[in-house]
Amino acid sequence: MLDQSPQLDRIFQALSDPTRRAVLDRLTQGPASVSELAAPFDSTLAAIVQHVQVLEASGLIATEKIGRTRTCRVSADAVARAERWLSERRARWEARFDRLGALLEGGAPPNKKAAKRKRMS
Amino acid sequence: MLDQSPQLDRIFQALSDPTRRAVLDRLTQGPASVSELAAPFDSTLAAIVQHVQVLEASGLIATEKIGRTRTCRVSADAVARAERWLSERRARWEARFDRLGALLEGGAPPNKKAAKRKRMS
Repeated sequence: MLDQSPQLDRIFQALSDPTRRAVLDRLTQGPASVSELAAPFDSTLAAIVQHVQVLEASGLIATEKIGRTRTCRVSADAVARAERWLSERRARWEARFDRLGALLEGGAPPNKKAAKRKRMS
Repeated sequence: MLDQSPQLDRIFQALSDPTRRAVLDRLTQGPASVSELAAPFDSTLAAIVQHVQVLEASGLIATEKIGRTRTCRVSADAVARAERWLSERRARWEARFDRLGALLEGGAPPNKKAAKRKRMS
């Protein structure tokens, strides 16, 4: 019954912070070093490094260290996974509304207000 | 630069817990009372009430108390908002890959391995 997925836990946890969302947002424009990621923020470099670590542990980004520079890039799979989790749920209750609508149209005289009340309940 | 949205913080925070995801999942099948939501879980009713409160504070669900029963239902807008945040980012870096692909195809002899290396960097 539990929707057990430690990776989903970590993905959504990582997305719950505005700085981490901004970092991910920046990376959709292309790979960047940790210093480049830190530049627009008032935070310390250490704070950004921590955010990068949380994002990497969730799988939302991957990093690679070459020489003294750690380069970060978005990891498409993890973002797609979170998006899919949400879109599947949305599809499920939209299907439910469609069935409800069909039921109301077929079984009772057309009455949009009643259908709307039913949907809101 | 910060992606400031306290509601997005709360939505993603609410989704980072497996019990809360399972509750939301159950509600996509239709409204339910808090006791109905609690039934499949080993947790105490008090724990489920807390999870319901977190979900409600995030806007992912709405609740209504009639008599002694609190009925919960999914709130489509908040789920759609989180989904949109993710799909917009995905669209952005897919567009970037398309531009990179076009650049590589137009500017250099076709070499799929090089294109792939570039994409992975």
